[in-house]
Amino acid sequence: MIDRSRSAARIERDIETLAGPDYTLSSEAIRRYAYTQVYRNTLDYFARALRELGFDVWEDPVGTLVAQNRPRGERVFGIGSHCDSNRNGGKYDGTLGVVTALEVCRLNAERGLGLPLRLVSFLEEEGSGFGQMLLGSRIVAQRVTEAELRESFRAIDDGRSFWAHAEEAGYDPSRWREAIHVLDDLTGWIECHIEQARVLQDTGNRIGVVSAIAGYVHGDLWIDGRADHAGATPMGFRLDPGPVAAEVILELERLALAAGRGTVGTVGELEAKPSLINVVPAQVRLSLDVRGVDEESFRGVARDAVAFAEEAARRRGLTATYRERQTLPATPMDSRIVAALEEAAKATGESAITMASGAAHDTMCVADYAPTAMVFVPCKDGISHSPLEDAKPADAALAAEIMLNAISTLV
Amino acid sequence: MIDRSRSAARIERDIETLAGPDYTLSSEAIRRYAYTQVYRNTLDYFARALRELGFDVWEDPVGTLVAQNRPRGERVFGIGSHCDSNRNGGKYDGTLGVVTALEVCRLNAERGLGLPLRLVSFLEEEGSGFGQMLLGSRIVAQRVTEAELRESFRAIDDGRSFWAHAEEAGYDPSRWREAIHVLDDLTGWIECHIEQARVLQDTGNRIGVVSAIAGYVHGDLWIDGRADHAGATPMGFRLDPGPVAAEVILELERLALAAGRGTVGTVGELEAKPSLINVVPAQVRLSLDVRGVDEESFRGVARDAVAFAEEAARRRGLTATYRERQTLPATPMDSRIVAALEEAAKATGESAITMASGAAHDTMCVADYAPTAMVFVPCKDGISHSPLEDAKPADAALAAEIMLNAISTLV
Repeated sequence: MIDRSRSAARIERDIETLAGPDYTLSSEAIRRYAYTQVYRNTLDYFARALRELGFDVWEDPVGTLVAQNRPRGERVFGIGSHCDSNRNGGKYDGTLGVVTALEVCRLNAERGLGLPLRLVSFLEEEGSGFGQMLLGSRIVAQRVTEAELRESFRAIDDGRSFWAHAEEAGYDPSRWREAIHVLDDLTGWIECHIEQARVLQDTGNRIGVVSAIAGYVHGDLWIDGRADHAGATPMGFRLDPGPVAAEVILELERLALAAGRGTVGTVGELEAKPSLINVVPAQVRLSLDVRGVDEESFRGVARDAVAFAEEAARRRGLTATYRERQTLPATPMDSRIVAALEEAAKATGESAITMASGAAHDTMCVADYAPTAMVFVPCKDGISHSPLEDAKPADAALAAEIMLNAISTLV
Repeated sequence: MIDRSRSAARIERDIETLAGPDYTLSSEAIRRYAYTQVYRNTLDYFARALRELGFDVWEDPVGTLVAQNRPRGERVFGIGSHCDSNRNGGKYDGTLGVVTALEVCRLNAERGLGLPLRLVSFLEEEGSGFGQMLLGSRIVAQRVTEAELRESFRAIDDGRSFWAHAEEAGYDPSRWREAIHVLDDLTGWIECHIEQARVLQDTGNRIGVVSAIAGYVHGDLWIDGRADHAGATPMGFRLDPGPVAAEVILELERLALAAGRGTVGTVGELEAKPSLINVVPAQVRLSLDVRGVDEESFRGVARDAVAFAEEAARRRGLTATYRERQTLPATPMDSRIVAALEEAAKATGESAITMASGAAHDTMCVADYAPTAMVFVPCKDGISHSPLEDAKPADAALAAEIMLNAISTLV
């Protein structure tokens, strides 16, 4: 039997160590991103711990950390996450996944299981350094262009290019295409991550086995009417975009609920122009975020919401204009790995559910090249990207045990 | 018969002169406010023209211009408006009212009618100098406090007090209470103004006789929910203030339409926090502007909208908080003056309607002390507070004739 309390203590020690002053730029939050000294210290911490376990440790040409307990070229099972943070982040988002993967490696060694493992800690998942989410895993999966790395992707701090920063940190970004080898020889991949919502907490489950990562449609809707004096213009003489925007917000909610299958729709940004109490707005802008694991459902909701907006605007003599920012397909997880995780979770006797991930994760990029799955652990009140972020080392210890046992049935 | 085309030509000349470089701080708009040289030049222009007509001209202790064709102490009929502008203003808002009043004085002299007239051009109606609307007429009506004038009211340009600026311009603000004498001995008052909406244009009328100036309720509604990850949080797990705000916007529209009697309701400001595409807002703020001439109607709509918001929020497990900014009662115009204007308008054979003013005007302050009414002329497409502001001197000439004839039946 695995001593989960010992795992939990080790995980807690790792997490608390990495929340110390050597590992964050801020005294009030975890702030850690690519090519800073605190990020370097964090990679070194993991590298040291992994070498102690007999792992070979190296980095890809831009700084994604890779470690494995088999000679290169042999088939291995991948585990890991990222250890950079949001600029105003907490101790758990990302880091807990790498720490839990490290615990899997420890348990594997301790129990003499001899499972062939590769641990990966992807560079820059949060976009805190260069404003680009999933940057390390996108480089690995070749989902970027050289022009982006050389020119478009610029540091938030000083506006210089990703390329220049990578070179300055001693990397060789000109070899970025070789980063794809991070995913060579993988028989599978499991990432552990905090859930970032309250589904586990509110349903009383300690473990979420992720069956799919949601795809999304991101876009903006502009409702154009006419600015008018709010006192002098009778109701019947107005072209007010406000009520049209209101109808769209309610219709998006209705469409998402009707679509089911975990489809969600959100208006997160809402902007009136000119935004004066005594002027009927000329324009209202709404952002649209529609996600889901069912491709047809979430794309359908986005499409229907836009069509509704156009019709609702037309009905009142206004116009609606839609522009997409980005669309990403859903990423189904591998059913064999999901089943192995479900089985291993069940064997622990602890509460677990199978669920979708609404948030994006590095695993989306890994899934281009290997069978993947994820394990979620609860985070208190669903809070993430905040110093208030909180999660239980005991839940991560449970996740480590489930991952270990699942992998042992898969390799 | 009055030669309206001659009146129109004189009005046009006044308006175009006062749009020249000596009378505005901007080459791209009319920008004219208290204690600037261009404002001084404008007062001097009117003072000169009025002295030529035999009027006595003076100013109140802070700079409201007063002129009359009778010895002080005699009963007179008041006419006028304001000649300051919005910072990015047009040629007509305010100024056309003073110019039209001047034309009434000219016609009175020219036709030897001998009507006892007082022309007033109120200081700082637009708030461009000190951010305080109706400032001159509020000082006259004693609707301010000395502490406000000495301390709270500060220049937009340099942050110094109204008091300091008034003194520097050669006025004696310590005598501000004497400004009330601007309204002494008034048998009545008529202000001409551009409509600032499209009711006259859209109904094909050249003249609007104002029967009441709307009162209003200004306030803010905060809908408080909970910020959540827009991807990771299923629809049923949210406390999203967006749909509540949407319901409030639609209900306010419904309530205003149902209330009728010219009651209008507007959400001009709309603000989501934290305003990120991928975060369910924690809070949405809506401004509320409800106006009308029927006291019970517009106050009832505001009250019902707030009660609806509280109930709609509660129904979804959120909270709504309301804070009033300001409430001003409606100002009914004097029925005898309104009837005289309607009669005089009818006599011209031109199209006219009786209507409410949704916008606030100096006449609201005059109404504290004398029977009042207003005459509106159309402005193109309802545009005001803009260099694009446009109105017809011929319509103002018609207004001058109607005012003259109405006054002759009233004094």
